[in-house]
Amino acid sequence: MKRVAVFFVGLALSAMAWAQVKVVYHLSEGVPQASRAIGNIRNHLAADPSAKIVVVAHGLGIDFLLDGATNQMDQPFAGSIGELAGRGVEFRVCNNTLTSRKIPKERVVMEASVVPSGVAEVARLQARESFVYLRP
Amino acid sequence: MKRVAVFFVGLALSAMAWAQVKVVYHLSEGVPQASRAIGNIRNHLAADPSAKIVVVAHGLGIDFLLDGATNQMDQPFAGSIGELAGRGVEFRVCNNTLTSRKIPKERVVMEASVVPSGVAEVARLQARESFVYLRP
Amino acid sequence: MKRVAVFFVGLALSAMAWAQVKVVYHLSEGVPQASRAIGNIRNHLAADPSAKIVVVAHGLGIDFLLDGATNQMDQPFAGSIGELAGRGVEFRVCNNTLTSRKIPKERVVMEASVVPSGVAEVARLQARESFVYLRP
Repeated sequence: MKRVAVFFVGLALSAMAWAQVKVVYHLSEGVPQASRAIGNIRNHLAADPSAKIVVVAHGLGIDFLLDGATNQMDQPFAGSIGELAGRGVEFRVCNNTLTSRKIPKERVVMEASVVPSGVAEVARLQARESFVYLRP
Repeated sequence: MKRVAVFFVGLALSAMAWAQVKVVYHLSEGVPQASRAIGNIRNHLAADPSAKIVVVAHGLGIDFLLDGATNQMDQPFAGSIGELAGRGVEFRVCNNTLTSRKIPKERVVMEASVVPSGVAEVARLQARESFVYLRP
Repeated sequence: MKRVAVFFVGLALSAMAWAQVKVVYHLSEGVPQASRAIGNIRNHLAADPSAKIVVVAHGLGIDFLLDGATNQMDQPFAGSIGELAGRGVEFRVCNNTLTSRKIPKERVVMEASVVPSGVAEVARLQARESFVYLRP
């Protein structure tokens, strides 16, 4: 009996200690928040290179993921997005936003995928896939 | 021994897979954030009709839950609140905010309940009732 | 077999019911957010005196944790920080922010400690130490 208990407590502890940290970055504010988020994610991966990061964007938060998007200093986002995608960061764009803002899917950069609902995705990643939350 | 292990791993996995997604929407900014949140919640429930959503409001975040509140376009919030409440969304208002802003409880719409502390409620729902977090 | 199952389900339930609520307050916006956060944390501890609160600050969020910092009404933050630290609240400042903003570590108030990355710390506390998230 005791050995079973020790086994399960050990299992739970080591699962917590060794599992990859998974983080959803929630973006809905627009280009300044997206610029901050890119710096944050670079710092995050420098401190914890094994972290799994998924960016979920809706509302004005999707603007930096549209073809040709530039930041406040007119620099294109494309380079940073490509670099982060190459390091395993995923980008997900809300389809409700595309529909309500009449933006064709073709304008979304190829590094990003489209999900039915941004907010439902933010909740699903936490509730079903053990992601933790961060709003940059 | 092995069967016990399989049982518990299975139990944990199925609990995660089948449990209802529960989400706390945290509002503290005022009417524009509340308007966004209402749109977000409609999209959320369209994508995941079984999601349990609790809105916790404090600070300026409670304004849309006061009798006669209107949005930036002078439209009353009452209709949206009634509609969402009818779909199971709960609204909770911070009593510390009512006290410090000298707002009588009677001004809170009937669809909302009053909790002692908005921030403590946001934490409690996550720590004690398995809610995940979302800031609209 | 059954008794083992009952034991573990009971263990899990009582762990959830009795564990201390642990909350990370995430600050990155500057002095107005810090002022709000201090009020929020006071209310939080009044409602749940046993809550463990860790404030993680990066970007402009660290300003109130620098020596001599004052709020929007020119009142020093020092008193509030000392008071909250005395009640067990911890303050952590992002080293990436210190470096990029060229702020010497010596300017950070003695109540705060420095962590390598603010965002990685926010994620780590949630993923590894069972903290829940709150953005004031």
